[in-house]
Amino acid sequence: MPALEILARDADTRARAGVLTTAHGAVRTPAFVPLATKATVKGLLPHEVRDLGYDMVLGNTFHLFLDPGDERIAGFGGLHDFMGWDHPIITDSGGFQVFSMGHGAVADEIKGKSAQGHDRLGKVISIKEEGVSFRSYLDGSTKFIGPETSMQIQANLGSDICLVFDECTPFHVDRDYTERSTERTHRWLERCMAWHGEHGPADQLVYAISQGGVYEDLRKQSTEVIAASGTAGIAIGGSLGEHKEQMYEVVDWATSVLGGEHEHKPRHLLGIGEVDDLVRGVELGIDTFDCAMPTRLGRHGVALVPEPTKRWRVDLTAGKFKDDHAPIMEGCPCPACALGLSRGYLRYLVHSRELTGMRLLTIHNLAFIQRVMQDLRDAILAGTLAETARALRGGASPGTTAPPPPVPA
Amino acid sequence: MPALEILARDADTRARAGVLTTAHGAVRTPAFVPLATKATVKGLLPHEVRDLGYDMVLGNTFHLFLDPGDERIAGFGGLHDFMGWDHPIITDSGGFQVFSMGHGAVADEIKGKSAQGHDRLGKVISIKEEGVSFRSYLDGSTKFIGPETSMQIQANLGSDICLVFDECTPFHVDRDYTERSTERTHRWLERCMAWHGEHGPADQLVYAISQGGVYEDLRKQSTEVIAASGTAGIAIGGSLGEHKEQMYEVVDWATSVLGGEHEHKPRHLLGIGEVDDLVRGVELGIDTFDCAMPTRLGRHGVALVPEPTKRWRVDLTAGKFKDDHAPIMEGCPCPACALGLSRGYLRYLVHSRELTGMRLLTIHNLAFIQRVMQDLRDAILAGTLAETARALRGGASPGTTAPPPPVPA
Repeated sequence: MPALEILARDADTRARAGVLTTAHGAVRTPAFVPLATKATVKGLLPHEVRDLGYDMVLGNTFHLFLDPGDERIAGFGGLHDFMGWDHPIITDSGGFQVFSMGHGAVADEIKGKSAQGHDRLGKVISIKEEGVSFRSYLDGSTKFIGPETSMQIQANLGSDICLVFDECTPFHVDRDYTERSTERTHRWLERCMAWHGEHGPADQLVYAISQGGVYEDLRKQSTEVIAASGTAGIAIGGSLGEHKEQMYEVVDWATSVLGGEHEHKPRHLLGIGEVDDLVRGVELGIDTFDCAMPTRLGRHGVALVPEPTKRWRVDLTAGKFKDDHAPIMEGCPCPACALGLSRGYLRYLVHSRELTGMRLLTIHNLAFIQRVMQDLRDAILAGTLAETARALRGGASPGTTAPPPPVPA
Repeated sequence: MPALEILARDADTRARAGVLTTAHGAVRTPAFVPLATKATVKGLLPHEVRDLGYDMVLGNTFHLFLDPGDERIAGFGGLHDFMGWDHPIITDSGGFQVFSMGHGAVADEIKGKSAQGHDRLGKVISIKEEGVSFRSYLDGSTKFIGPETSMQIQANLGSDICLVFDECTPFHVDRDYTERSTERTHRWLERCMAWHGEHGPADQLVYAISQGGVYEDLRKQSTEVIAASGTAGIAIGGSLGEHKEQMYEVVDWATSVLGGEHEHKPRHLLGIGEVDDLVRGVELGIDTFDCAMPTRLGRHGVALVPEPTKRWRVDLTAGKFKDDHAPIMEGCPCPACALGLSRGYLRYLVHSRELTGMRLLTIHNLAFIQRVMQDLRDAILAGTLAETARALRGGASPGTTAPPPPVPA
């Protein structure tokens, strides 16, 4: 049985709404997946994440491997029990973090991520066919992750969805490097599947990762190869280009070859989560997204608001909010805004680096993104995606742009 | 009408249980008062503090004066509206922070507080009869707080209970200095009351502060002077000695002169909050306590547990908890323990400086202290304080050491 049941398709785009079934329950798609990098969505408790409407979180293989260690987590019954989250978990493969160290600052280009933190990620010692050796950023000890290690770690974590170990190619590398790297990623995919087939949890879904950079033939070829490999799902990774239009093009190439027999494979877009990207990603046929943005911005005092010309952001640390009595966002139904606290107060809290401020903005931002995804899903189910997409792109308040979901028969 | 209604008295000690009435509602005494230093109990939302059973929080005059500014907070309708806490607030006078700068590291001795942070509190420029000039730790600008300023700030904050501006004498100063300082504190008390009488909010209760250091005659004299001054309540401040027994002696001297006509003045003990100190403080006739300890320890990974030989503390950052599947505290009914998370997980979170870990331990510690206070109050009401005090001192689990409170008639 395929992991993804498709409930409705948009007539004009590749968008689909469905239900992704995992060992720990269902994920209603399309869906955003908040990061629980170190076994917690920073500042929130599991039931709060659930109450915001989220079905799945993403755990970080690289960080959890180094500390507290995947074997230790297995001793606690796996990541679900360890962190008290009894719902689906997807784990990345560790490839992105490992190659961020190797490729250095250029890794920032991969997905427009901040360079902060990369210095702290330690140093790569060697990248070989076998895998990657590096120094732990925690204690300087030598560590190794290869395809089998990554699968072993994710088996110990007991995630519902694991990702195969890939080389995450940065933007600056040439076609030749990208081609050779993509071929290695495909060889690693085979090793991952071999290990998982023999040792992996039977109920853990494996997602292969499409590479191929920004080269149309390589990207399509890679996507075809991994689609044919027999994994339950597909993730789109690596360099997605240097600007949004190029990223959309790359995703378009990837999903263009995922119709027909591969249609029921769930598709995850790695590290993407801005509002316009979510809308476009859904139109291109993406089922799930993860991104540090909503939670990271929240911890730094930035709230998401329906203002497309400002990248849906308002920086509440700005001095102009000192005396602002308005809420974070007028009419926002989120638990943070429901408390009736002012931008002036929030500004003070985040400016003072108070935990309470980080927490309130994390809640607001995750609630905002969840309403975006809920609107998109409801619109696909109702056959009105074009209107909802237009409204969201135009700055309509998420949570108001789609008809209510149909009542299940 | 006196602010404190005494509902019951212990037969063998000075302990009493009562209700302290303020403009924003009642405080059931004896009570612990969590710190909301910068307009938030760090990491918690107002309703969570309330749900833990707390009636009152303490706001910090010094910090709020510097940022965001008391006039700004007045523009938001006062501290209650600013922070979304519609229950009693007590504000300190700023004296402790200002004199911590002046007396430097020796201020640590005053209440056994950590030296961390004092360097960041800026520098005192001058201490004169008029008041104290200092440099803001935020921007280096020159600031001044004197008795009238302190009362003005607290009027702008709109706290239910304000404290008069005092010189907080450290432990190392001699009798002569203590005597002269205490006399100045008394002169400042008069100026505070004069200002408050003319400009202060009519429904704001004023507490005078007893000084006199560790000298019996000075401490008793100071307490008598301030009791006779006509303020609604009494706080006990300044140097309380270099060890617990001396502190109890100092508090004993102070409350020994607060019987008779002064009996209905609520008594606050500044900066004290360890479990054995709370028990002894209640026996000595203290009604309310504040202390950074439960919240600060929580943020640093230390949980309160019923283990007197370990100062009621367990440091969960210790490596020995890495594989500990037990909860923070067996049988603990607090919202954090109710989630069923393990010490091993908490150890990982606090070791990783994750906000979620700080928050969970803050909740646990505040819940623990609240149960201590609830037990003491219930025991006084039931006439069984001796048993409860003995049980708490002996390591019984708070929340189990007193009969349930009598049903109101």
